Amino acid sequence: MRRQKKFYAWGYADEDLTPEEIKPWEAEIAERYGLNGFDVTPPPRPEEITLRAPRVVVPDALKDIVRTDHLTRLEHSYGKAGFDTLRMFMRSVPNPPDAVAFPENEQDVVRLLDWCDKIGAKAIPYGGGSSVVKGIEPAAAFDKVVTISTRHMDKVLEVDAVSHAARIQGGIYGPAIEDQLRDSPFTMRHYMQAYRCSTLGGWIATRSGGHYATLYTHIDDFVESTRVVTPAGTLETRRLPGSGAGPSPDRLFLGSEGILGIITEAWVRLRKKPTFRASASVRFKTFFDGADAVREITQAGLYPANCRLLEAREALPNIPWSSEEAVLVLAFESADHPLDAWMKLALEICTGHGGVPDAGADDENAHRSGAAGAWRNKFIRAPHYGEHAVARGILSSTFETAMTWERVPDFHRKITKITQDTIKRVTGRDGTVTCRFTHVYPDGPCLYFTFGGILDKRVALDQFMEVLSTCTAATVEHGGTTTHHHAVGRFHRPFYDRQRPELFAKALRGAKRELDPKGLMNPGVLIDP
Amino acid sequence: MRRQKKFYAWGYADEDLTPEEIKPWEAEIAERYGLNGFDVTPPPRPEEITLRAPRVVVPDALKDIVRTDHLTRLEHSYGKAGFDTLRMFMRSVPNPPDAVAFPENEQDVVRLLDWCDKIGAKAIPYGGGSSVVKGIEPAAAFDKVVTISTRHMDKVLEVDAVSHAARIQGGIYGPAIEDQLRDSPFTMRHYMQAYRCSTLGGWIATRSGGHYATLYTHIDDFVESTRVVTPAGTLETRRLPGSGAGPSPDRLFLGSEGILGIITEAWVRLRKKPTFRASASVRFKTFFDGADAVREITQAGLYPANCRLLEAREALPNIPWSSEEAVLVLAFESADHPLDAWMKLALEICTGHGGVPDAGADDENAHRSGAAGAWRNKFIRAPHYGEHAVARGILSSTFETAMTWERVPDFHRKITKITQDTIKRVTGRDGTVTCRFTHVYPDGPCLYFTFGGILDKRVALDQFMEVLSTCTAATVEHGGTTTHHHAVGRFHRPFYDRQRPELFAKALRGAKRELDPKGLMNPGVLIDP
Repeated sequence: MRRQKKFYAWGYADEDLTPEEIKPWEAEIAERYGLNGFDVTPPPRPEEITLRAPRVVVPDALKDIVRTDHLTRLEHSYGKAGFDTLRMFMRSVPNPPDAVAFPENEQDVVRLLDWCDKIGAKAIPYGGGSSVVKGIEPAAAFDKVVTISTRHMDKVLEVDAVSHAARIQGGIYGPAIEDQLRDSPFTMRHYMQAYRCSTLGGWIATRSGGHYATLYTHIDDFVESTRVVTPAGTLETRRLPGSGAGPSPDRLFLGSEGILGIITEAWVRLRKKPTFRASASVRFKTFFDGADAVREITQAGLYPANCRLLEAREALPNIPWSSEEAVLVLAFESADHPLDAWMKLALEICTGHGGVPDAGADDENAHRSGAAGAWRNKFIRAPHYGEHAVARGILSSTFETAMTWERVPDFHRKITKITQDTIKRVTGRDGTVTCRFTHVYPDGPCLYFTFGGILDKRVALDQFMEVLSTCTAATVEHGGTTTHHHAVGRFHRPFYDRQRPELFAKALRGAKRELDPKGLMNPGVLIDP
Repeated sequence: MRRQKKFYAWGYADEDLTPEEIKPWEAEIAERYGLNGFDVTPPPRPEEITLRAPRVVVPDALKDIVRTDHLTRLEHSYGKAGFDTLRMFMRSVPNPPDAVAFPENEQDVVRLLDWCDKIGAKAIPYGGGSSVVKGIEPAAAFDKVVTISTRHMDKVLEVDAVSHAARIQGGIYGPAIEDQLRDSPFTMRHYMQAYRCSTLGGWIATRSGGHYATLYTHIDDFVESTRVVTPAGTLETRRLPGSGAGPSPDRLFLGSEGILGIITEAWVRLRKKPTFRASASVRFKTFFDGADAVREITQAGLYPANCRLLEAREALPNIPWSSEEAVLVLAFESADHPLDAWMKLALEICTGHGGVPDAGADDENAHRSGAAGAWRNKFIRAPHYGEHAVARGILSSTFETAMTWERVPDFHRKITKITQDTIKRVTGRDGTVTCRFTHVYPDGPCLYFTFGGILDKRVALDQFMEVLSTCTAATVEHGGTTTHHHAVGRFHRPFYDRQRPELFAKALRGAKRELDPKGLMNPGVLIDP
């Protein structure tokens, strides 16, 4: 039987944080804000949330693959951002999809788009539903909405052991890819926080960022070819290791966020499972000492698999909030050769910037112990805290951007200050803000900000949205991108509009008109008709 | 004074091969084909070629930047393919541009496009004019044609020494980039055979492939942002090290071949000038032994800067034509660290496939001596042979494609046989065909074929085009791309049409209609209106 996901928050219905995880976290926050405890709102039960009646009638021919029951519609109404969970805890779902479709194959996808076309419904490709940017949420203005989940199209169809690639269906979840590659020497190794509940098609549609901190950061670099069902027909790009024939067709669909069609298959590049590892955690006196080291490492052409620079107070236990210390989680991996030479050079660069490797660094299992291990565990468990924060009126969210190195110090300072000031202004008390680099390039990092505070439960949603929107707007206003790897969605749309050249929006509208002449596909994400 | 380029062939008017280069080459070909000598057609003089009168009248306001003189129009009529030189030697230029414009700045580009719009002329962005695919050649059907050369927009405007990037004008030639970076520690290091006479804007418009054989193969990976003048207005993408906000706007212009606008500026990534080098030449018994080694090197994540696999008989002197031997030109380079560890691993892989390093391998200057040096010299001098081949009725040309590894042996065999058979069928005698890998990816190489034969001068152009077209068509028919880095142009267009999904052509047409509503820009390249 398929494991049931939580309709109101991250993860599966049969899993949660343990009391041993919640208690110290709760105590720490209470202490930080001088609170005696929290008023804990219980999570919603499905029957507590009223949905309007479906506005579509499912024809007999589609009844096997289209559902309109309460729980299914509820589950597919929101993504997994903090503001999604918050609205679920408010028992507020004014714009659910009218129906949710589960195609078994590509022909089903074609039939479903035909049906949407016939009844004038908008179609929202769902992926794994892990969007944190309102990417799969129906807009209030839609008359009829059919959400299409490709989760039954979940097979690795073919593995090419010579070229290290596989043909994989778009609806497959992350763990199923690795599971189906189990008997092969290969791995895709495109992990992100949403890995367990997100799909290959969703990764491609949203330009996800994964495990690799350098070189192969975005899913873009994994894609050899794509197969897409659009309202105008089905399209398959040619499988090639490289090409210079016109603008890349794959790149039009990478980041298309469901506005052009549904990605049903792709050929993606694999790697041999790593057998050699070199890992280390390096402490720096300040975040910017660490930043200088990270910049030098990427510009030296060393290409570590992991190269995450974190503020110690965010990443590690027992670091005072006033600490400026930073920790770099560094790892090289290979299926071919030992990595001593690489790690040695990287650590030399680190020590040149005052970095001090943790004891046990350079140990093959260092990524599972020490600072790196603590961070790794936190990374995996973090999404589960969302519902518990919301239940307690705790503000906890993130936004991410990218910036070239020469502007990073000033940008970091401004964005940090704007975030602090905004939390204070909106919630009436000081909050917290930390930054990490999740992916790094020779010309700049992805800056990932985490912030927290205490909300007034009566106006929690307004406060949440105002803080998050103000900070995200600031990243764009000060020259960054509205998203390095979380996608645009309906939430980032106003900031994306300021960042993206208007003539490119026109070009994209022109392309969309050809592939989706009636504007069925996820309208309002990226562009208006 | 600006150095004058040859209007009828590659290079500058004041340079040529020496008799010491020509004589042994000529003798070898005569011997190979059992000829007593060659009837050498003299190169054309400008006055030997009649051009139709210009069909446009240049307004006074543009007279400073638009020329209609005979030599200027002649120079801008063809690219630099063998069939271009051949047609020049035939004194046949039926479709010259009516005028050639040399904007001094972006405002001039806008004025020129306005003028083209007003008089109903087609506009062809010229770059450096090194196209080998009829990318800058006016079509017979055009009523009026204005070719726009941005060669006066040739400055490095800004260098960012922190992020290792520069803002550079689109009309700059390759050597001028390096020259203007002379006093900085940086280099762009995007060299290709056409480097001396091609522009940054042209590289971006055609997705050129450069010096690096792995990782940073195409110009695509160098581009941080682009600035483009389109008939609908001017557009600038945001300078970012990475982004996931919608489909990449830069990727729409990368490979756009002048159909959307003129690239006036770009921010591109630089590298520190390499100070450490490790170079080697490795001999293999057969090309496919070498191919297996190259595949393993790329899949091991070693990322050499140079990794060209060549057939020895093509690359080296004194190798019998019957030899199956191959030579791998391998090099690592860095501004940061010695590369012994990298080279050691790569050479271990080579010897595992029977490779034997040349004496002097692993020497820092090995890339200028031995097999690697011989190849390097040949690579640089090769384009100059074109006019001498044409003058003698010698067929000499290349085509290139890319293919995933698992299909490479069969593909190579088929394309080689088709090329041999076609030369025999068309010219009535056996020719030659060799293959090299110019760029390599973990999932496949770029296969670069060179072929030769003897033409019948009376029907030389027909023979030339039939051989080249048949072979290029075969690469697409058997699953390859019509071009890995030479671009599409009018020559590859029919093959590109078979390779590229028709729905993508529709999408591109939709985008073009928004940016170029009247269809001024280089029509017929990539798509029809």
